[in-house]
Amino acid sequence: MSRAAAEIRPAQPLYLRVANELREQVSSGALRVGEKAPSIRASSRRHDVSISTVLQAYFWLEDRGYLEARPRSGFYVRRPQAELVPEPEFHRAAGPPRQVGVADTLLAILRPEAETVPLALGSASPAPELLPTARINRALRQVIREHPQHSALYGPTEGVEELRRQVARRSGDFGCNFAPGEVVVTSGGMEALQLALRAAARPGDLVAIESPTYFGVLQSIESLSMKAIEVPTHPHTGLDLDALERAIRKHRVKACVTMPNGHNPLGYVLPAEHSRALVELCARHGVAVIEDDVFGDLAHGERRGRAAKSFDRDGSVIMCGSFSKTLGAGLRVGWIQAGRFQQEVLRLKSITTLSTPVLSQYAVVRMLASGGYDRHLRRLRLVFAEQVRRVSEAVRRYFPSGTRLTRPEAGFLLWVQLPGKVDSMELYRRAAAHGIGVMPGTVFSAGPAFRSHIRLSCGHPWSNELDAALKTLGRLCRA
Amino acid sequence: MSRAAAEIRPAQPLYLRVANELREQVSSGALRVGEKAPSIRASSRRHDVSISTVLQAYFWLEDRGYLEARPRSGFYVRRPQAELVPEPEFHRAAGPPRQVGVADTLLAILRPEAETVPLALGSASPAPELLPTARINRALRQVIREHPQHSALYGPTEGVEELRRQVARRSGDFGCNFAPGEVVVTSGGMEALQLALRAAARPGDLVAIESPTYFGVLQSIESLSMKAIEVPTHPHTGLDLDALERAIRKHRVKACVTMPNGHNPLGYVLPAEHSRALVELCARHGVAVIEDDVFGDLAHGERRGRAAKSFDRDGSVIMCGSFSKTLGAGLRVGWIQAGRFQQEVLRLKSITTLSTPVLSQYAVVRMLASGGYDRHLRRLRLVFAEQVRRVSEAVRRYFPSGTRLTRPEAGFLLWVQLPGKVDSMELYRRAAAHGIGVMPGTVFSAGPAFRSHIRLSCGHPWSNELDAALKTLGRLCRA
Repeated sequence: MSRAAAEIRPAQPLYLRVANELREQVSSGALRVGEKAPSIRASSRRHDVSISTVLQAYFWLEDRGYLEARPRSGFYVRRPQAELVPEPEFHRAAGPPRQVGVADTLLAILRPEAETVPLALGSASPAPELLPTARINRALRQVIREHPQHSALYGPTEGVEELRRQVARRSGDFGCNFAPGEVVVTSGGMEALQLALRAAARPGDLVAIESPTYFGVLQSIESLSMKAIEVPTHPHTGLDLDALERAIRKHRVKACVTMPNGHNPLGYVLPAEHSRALVELCARHGVAVIEDDVFGDLAHGERRGRAAKSFDRDGSVIMCGSFSKTLGAGLRVGWIQAGRFQQEVLRLKSITTLSTPVLSQYAVVRMLASGGYDRHLRRLRLVFAEQVRRVSEAVRRYFPSGTRLTRPEAGFLLWVQLPGKVDSMELYRRAAAHGIGVMPGTVFSAGPAFRSHIRLSCGHPWSNELDAALKTLGRLCRA
Repeated sequence: MSRAAAEIRPAQPLYLRVANELREQVSSGALRVGEKAPSIRASSRRHDVSISTVLQAYFWLEDRGYLEARPRSGFYVRRPQAELVPEPEFHRAAGPPRQVGVADTLLAILRPEAETVPLALGSASPAPELLPTARINRALRQVIREHPQHSALYGPTEGVEELRRQVARRSGDFGCNFAPGEVVVTSGGMEALQLALRAAARPGDLVAIESPTYFGVLQSIESLSMKAIEVPTHPHTGLDLDALERAIRKHRVKACVTMPNGHNPLGYVLPAEHSRALVELCARHGVAVIEDDVFGDLAHGERRGRAAKSFDRDGSVIMCGSFSKTLGAGLRVGWIQAGRFQQEVLRLKSITTLSTPVLSQYAVVRMLASGGYDRHLRRLRLVFAEQVRRVSEAVRRYFPSGTRLTRPEAGFLLWVQLPGKVDSMELYRRAAAHGIGVMPGTVFSAGPAFRSHIRLSCGHPWSNELDAALKTLGRLCRA
């Protein structure tokens, strides 16, 4: 990984270059916990950057828990336990454009029986007990009283005004300033993604995607007869913009799907400068950006990251959000801000689901308008950060040496690279036989790059059962 | 029209040839109400068919109210008042395959403001007061009590087992015998149609459609980059099977979209023999049939017609249903029986809406399981038949002479052919200015064939306001 990290793209902000190298040194063991980080002056010379750039890097690392500043002494390496396990490798090789074909593998994995595997480390759903279901039911009963004819008519295709207003109001949290009229309510984030792809590209068109990426992105592209070009994606700095630019220059790329805030499966929160660089690169080449923000509200820090959408100047960034991970997937309520593609999105929505049930929409409005959503989010972020920590710790303890795993900054997903020749599909099958669900890495790319990876969901509260399941998984990895 | 009717296809059952000619004579005024129909023997000679075939034709006409049998005297012409207005003309000319393009016109018409036009003769939604909203709300409250965590998790992609069972149980009503496992729940009939098209055809493929057809069919085909070939469709006998066969022989048709039970906008219930002939024709040529049955439960007679699906032998008929017209569109619950395309439909559903909200599904289950749905349907059919009769009567009274209109046998839609050069888009705009919504014929075809047609919804109970609105429409037609 250090080789790769050394070939830093010129477009990457300088301070991140500095920060990432230091982080690599920690990962590789060149710098140990408790040791003093190189002095500001030394780093400045080494990287040939200004003192303030080094300071920016060190503060960024401090902010993320990699360094701690000791008064009048300097910066020291600080690292959570689980980070003794190195992060997954990053390979720069970009795949060729291709017809993706993960559908069959996925259908087998996502079949209903698989979803009900008791220990669903596979499914990216939070445990029901973490969600405010009682409050949602109260909200639903109120809506039924206040809008007794909610079921009689089609709701507006674009969604109920109140919900559009609530989403617009919250858009300031990620650096945007939506007008309610710019928001379209969807039947979940998946519909938003599908509408975005259909609005921004046609069958046969080429879509740039992150590698690894959420399998739903691959499936959608496949089902729409589009082609995908997979761009190497770093577990912290996201899409390799050099590789993306080469792909764009070489092929006619129509859109780029990205998850800057709470990547699935990598879990990173992209530094704002990266999102800006991505949006600018795409804007220069007339490529639409589809920003999947489904995990955006679940940043582990106090505040969530800026959206790529906030750097949009010409309406070419389509942002997709959802309440599935925070209020409950069963409501099927999401949203899309489609920029210059809004009319096309409305047109497509009007011939697929026509409108999203008004009842669920108003229930979400009640949750958002009451302030209860923010309180709930604050708690949920802490809970997920803690669950991720505990699962990471168990992986460190139980999995074979050589295992690598991500350090998610949002959401509740862990991406695990298994050592040697462990076949994740085989592991998936064996784990299922033990009643344990995991998501094999195979489905996060159309190519073979992630055959020995798995995605673990930390959406369920820690328990002895979970501990035992992870122990079993570790044993299966060794076998 | 009589010329067209004389060129009957050989594939049409003999008795229908006889029946239709007689009906044409009534329409054209060659035979008047109260006159004696030609004797059985004379008809037998004239059409060179057996006595029993003529009897079958006469009984069929009697059943539909065109003839009455007087004991020991013979059959006499009988005709409801509104039928003094002739039916819309039928032209045999088939259009060429084409990229359809009604999206922009439609978006303007279906924009939210237009939908809320007070007198929505345009929208195909029943009036809320005709729907069992109080019972649905009761059902919803019960479901919330019994499944308090309904909102927390994704429901199964294929729908909840109980609803699939209810749909399967009812399939006997239209001559089918579905297994629950063959039914997939959708977020409304529109999603079902979209899934059907995407499963049965690919971008660039050619789809045969009825002309006129529901604009949602045209929009879906357009949005999926498919091409459409419009097949002339008779207001009683449906798709012109000769023309369809010619189209299939000449081009590579992948699928055919049809509405045998409660056609939108023509309102017919296709004789079972026609459905059978259509299914057999398509099966011979490997063309998938997509049967849109959204109005199927609203046949005006005591029993609903047989589904084309009931003649399916190799799983090539995809049937799409919905509860939008009978329980309420706001629930967004429909279903699809996709035959051999089921896996593909599940795959597509899993990457669009993922699943339909469990809450609405269970509420529909409660309605269907209680027997209340059937009681409600019996009432609703009578109500719609009566409303169609009254609107027809008003059209006869207020619209200029030369106006023609359908005699719907299901649903609550009337298809009106305006005389001379009346431009339905212009009429649409003028009516909207009077707060009256109508659906211009322009959007029921990609070609210009229905420029002087409008579709009127009779989904609202008769009122003085409605009477005045129809009077105004009549006046606008004259202007």
